[in-house]
Amino acid sequence: MVLSHTTHPGNIGAAARAMKTMGLGRLYLINPRHFPDPQATAMAAGADDILQDAVVCSSIDEALQGVTFTVAMTARLRDISIAVQTPREAMPQVLQQAQTAAVALLFGTEMSGLTNEEMGKAQLGVNIPANPEFSSLNIAAAVQVMAYELSAAAQSFVSALPELQPAPHERVEGLYAHLEKTLFEIGFFTTQNPARLMQRLRRLFARTRLEDEEINILRGILTVATEYNARLKRRYQEEHKDV
Amino acid sequence: MVLSHTTHPGNIGAAARAMKTMGLGRLYLINPRHFPDPQATAMAAGADDILQDAVVCSSIDEALQGVTFTVAMTARLRDISIAVQTPREAMPQVLQQAQTAAVALLFGTEMSGLTNEEMGKAQLGVNIPANPEFSSLNIAAAVQVMAYELSAAAQSFVSALPELQPAPHERVEGLYAHLEKTLFEIGFFTTQNPARLMQRLRRLFARTRLEDEEINILRGILTVATEYNARLKRRYQEEHKDV
Repeated sequence: MVLSHTTHPGNIGAAARAMKTMGLGRLYLINPRHFPDPQATAMAAGADDILQDAVVCSSIDEALQGVTFTVAMTARLRDISIAVQTPREAMPQVLQQAQTAAVALLFGTEMSGLTNEEMGKAQLGVNIPANPEFSSLNIAAAVQVMAYELSAAAQSFVSALPELQPAPHERVEGLYAHLEKTLFEIGFFTTQNPARLMQRLRRLFARTRLEDEEINILRGILTVATEYNARLKRRYQEEHKDV
Repeated sequence: MVLSHTTHPGNIGAAARAMKTMGLGRLYLINPRHFPDPQATAMAAGADDILQDAVVCSSIDEALQGVTFTVAMTARLRDISIAVQTPREAMPQVLQQAQTAAVALLFGTEMSGLTNEEMGKAQLGVNIPANPEFSSLNIAAAVQVMAYELSAAAQSFVSALPELQPAPHERVEGLYAHLEKTLFEIGFFTTQNPARLMQRLRRLFARTRLEDEEINILRGILTVATEYNARLKRRYQEEHKDV
């Protein structure tokens, strides 16, 4: 990441933090107004190593030395000399280039972005699509988006979805039977159509894909509800044989 | 976007800016430590309208009133009760849900994220894949990534109307409260840990996305079960005043 003429040191710190969260490390600063600076350190919130290793340069050519592919961030889509893509479109090419040599993502100053001269050093422009009426991303936010896209493209995300282990058919059917029996016992079907109601409940549980332990919990509830009832009923009937 | 217990007002401003750059507008703040605040305004850098229209709430239930689908941001992948996806995986579902009703993206406090109780209000978790050794994204950076992904997904989103019409947050919470009360009344909690059990039941129903009529059915069952128990108990106690 190459930040050119950054005005606010807090933005440098926030950019370092954004980079580190996405596993990136190499930060180059072209003529930052204040650096090092306590505000940069504060906003880095633990990404101090990135700030310590940051390379301060006095010109863009110094920063891009050894780089073979430079991507210029731009808020403009027209009147620039290079092709402009979205971050997502650009990443495969960025990764391709990065396999064999150094690639730079170049960010301009807060107020006005990159100069035409700086743009001229890049092989590709990238525009983060934004609200046409309010398109000014904070520079650290732009670094975050680009680092995130780079990381996403690099990993081609492996899902973190905790695998659900749905219970087998017969277990689910066992629950339905238990549920229907319980609803009869507690007198729920006196006012409801049993077939239609059970269909509704099946639909609900079909969507949720019940796990074994969840079926145990639900059947436990049904059992307690019925046992308690049965216990009371039995004792009541023992005492009232005429009822 | 719902930010819970945000500590630093600058983060609220930066989040508002991030939202506005991506064309989003509705910001809810649950008990922010300082708001309104000059630092929030400074960091909003022109997104003042979002701050002015921000709704300050005193509880998560107030913030989520009328919401039918809540996405909880989490840095954890394990030990949480709901499914977790990457932002990119989650967006089609978020957009799908947002077609017909209000959707909330829920962000926790800077230091520790969302509480388990807050997580329990959500139907889906989203984790921004990050450097395992430095995974703490700034909250405004996380808002920027989510808003960016939402905007990117919206551009390629093909509408398919959902067949389900999920009930709003407050109706689902009403069911949980009714269920918990009933489980106490029928004596289920004598052998089970109530908090853990309710978390399991929340997880189950979070997956199923209950409809209004289904909540009516389930609450009807609970009501009948309780009445039935109470009736038996009363009659039994009347006959056994010595018990």
